[in-house]
Amino acid sequence: MNVGIIGMGSIGMLMAAYLGRYHNVHVYVRREEQKEKLYQEGIYCDAVGHPVSVEAHLLEEGFPQSHDVLIVAVKQTGLDSVLDYSFPSNTPVLFLQNGMGHIEKLLERPYPSWVGVVEHGALKQDYCHVLHTGKGVVRIASVTKDENIKKIISSLNHYDFPVEYEPDYKEMLTSKLIVNTVINPLTTLFQVNNGHIISNSYLREIAEAVCREACLTLNRSFEKEWERVLNIAETTSENQSSMFKDMMEGRQTEVDAISGYILKKSRTPLPYHQFLIRAIHALQWEKGVRIHG
Amino acid sequence: MNVGIIGMGSIGMLMAAYLGRYHNVHVYVRREEQKEKLYQEGIYCDAVGHPVSVEAHLLEEGFPQSHDVLIVAVKQTGLDSVLDYSFPSNTPVLFLQNGMGHIEKLLERPYPSWVGVVEHGALKQDYCHVLHTGKGVVRIASVTKDENIKKIISSLNHYDFPVEYEPDYKEMLTSKLIVNTVINPLTTLFQVNNGHIISNSYLREIAEAVCREACLTLNRSFEKEWERVLNIAETTSENQSSMFKDMMEGRQTEVDAISGYILKKSRTPLPYHQFLIRAIHALQWEKGVRIHG
Repeated sequence: MNVGIIGMGSIGMLMAAYLGRYHNVHVYVRREEQKEKLYQEGIYCDAVGHPVSVEAHLLEEGFPQSHDVLIVAVKQTGLDSVLDYSFPSNTPVLFLQNGMGHIEKLLERPYPSWVGVVEHGALKQDYCHVLHTGKGVVRIASVTKDENIKKIISSLNHYDFPVEYEPDYKEMLTSKLIVNTVINPLTTLFQVNNGHIISNSYLREIAEAVCREACLTLNRSFEKEWERVLNIAETTSENQSSMFKDMMEGRQTEVDAISGYILKKSRTPLPYHQFLIRAIHALQWEKGVRIHG
Repeated sequence: MNVGIIGMGSIGMLMAAYLGRYHNVHVYVRREEQKEKLYQEGIYCDAVGHPVSVEAHLLEEGFPQSHDVLIVAVKQTGLDSVLDYSFPSNTPVLFLQNGMGHIEKLLERPYPSWVGVVEHGALKQDYCHVLHTGKGVVRIASVTKDENIKKIISSLNHYDFPVEYEPDYKEMLTSKLIVNTVINPLTTLFQVNNGHIISNSYLREIAEAVCREACLTLNRSFEKEWERVLNIAETTSENQSSMFKDMMEGRQTEVDAISGYILKKSRTPLPYHQFLIRAIHALQWEKGVRIHG
């Protein structure tokens, strides 16, 4: 298949390295320097073991190729500027952002929209190198009706890089959102790896309260979602959350798309979410990072 | 006058250095080494400019001297063990602890009990050296009726180390408690100097919410107390709060005596206080500091 990927952050690179082994992968980037590097050296992922060559393009030059699927792997905070480009109307577009704030925008688009959650850990080293720090699954669901989704997913799926179809995108994104709203801001505020959510019993009490607020707002079972949070914190216990990484590297965080989305959805006050959003903004201010929106 | 001081932390040392210039000061410490050092070298405070000699005793040996006033300058967290010693019943005892949790214990004592708030900044360097980092006032009020308090306060008072009488101990301690419950846990959690409570507008929003909870619980005017908090954060903007210092040096903090006291007093949930207490406990856990009580 012919796969396009927009955004060469850690997740985009991981997808390109694994899919590029068996598919024709085109990547779209912002900087000429980045394009040149990727064109010349390909992508090297430690777990794949050999460089994978990709065709690199500048995003601003549009889409010269037709793709079977176009994957948007930019951060939530960079999504709006990507949505300004006109995508081919017959190509399904797979969005891999955290949060749920972007879903409404996708419903209006002329192309088939899919959403995915990536349950892998990945760490970008430079333009060409990415580390696969935690093995998982890519789950994909369609937002707008699409007959081809299962066929394409089964072509992308591979035993050492599983890609799975999910029938209900809301269910899938909601679970991911709850995990993110608990683990991300707390690990960032306390500057700890994911596992501390479980091992530090005081942090665990806070995490439980945050999870309760989220489940109440999104109308989900606390017991079920809390179980999921604990599982993920345990399997990724040595990992740093994406928000913690963003903060350490002085980038804007996705707190508004994650915790902010839940706070906005709620009709009652959510003091722990409100505290955490303010806290992450306060930390960004201390680091001199512009607040989004 | 003859003054006894129990506890040679930064505040005890500051009091000893200033009062020792014009009074006969006896200090009570726990360790033989500390006693020897103080006996030989006296106390040196940068702002006093010359060593002040004091008589040093081991606390466990009791009180060989009679004093006009006995000052207890240990932390709230060390108060219980000090209260186990039997104090002379005719000597007024001045307690300088943060919080209000100890007041009820003082009402039962056979000696006249006073309480004080120290609005100075002080930083202990070693057994014999203390820095005076912020000039202020010592305010003293009596908990149990005492005819002599005004006379003694006026003897301690000096133009460059003012000691003032306050008629209402509850009023005085409540204001101090509110300032502490806002500034201390927030500066500790965010690892910032006091001034950031004002300059970082996201932190300021959190501080305002914490202040509101405290005022509601303690039945005080939010406007008046918030004004006080802002004033103190401004005049001590370059200082680190005592809790932040305790945390950095791996000591137990006074969060339970400060925020915990307010949470316990409240008949409604105080989510920001609850969050902050858990957060400070979580940080102590990360630092390997035993949680009190």
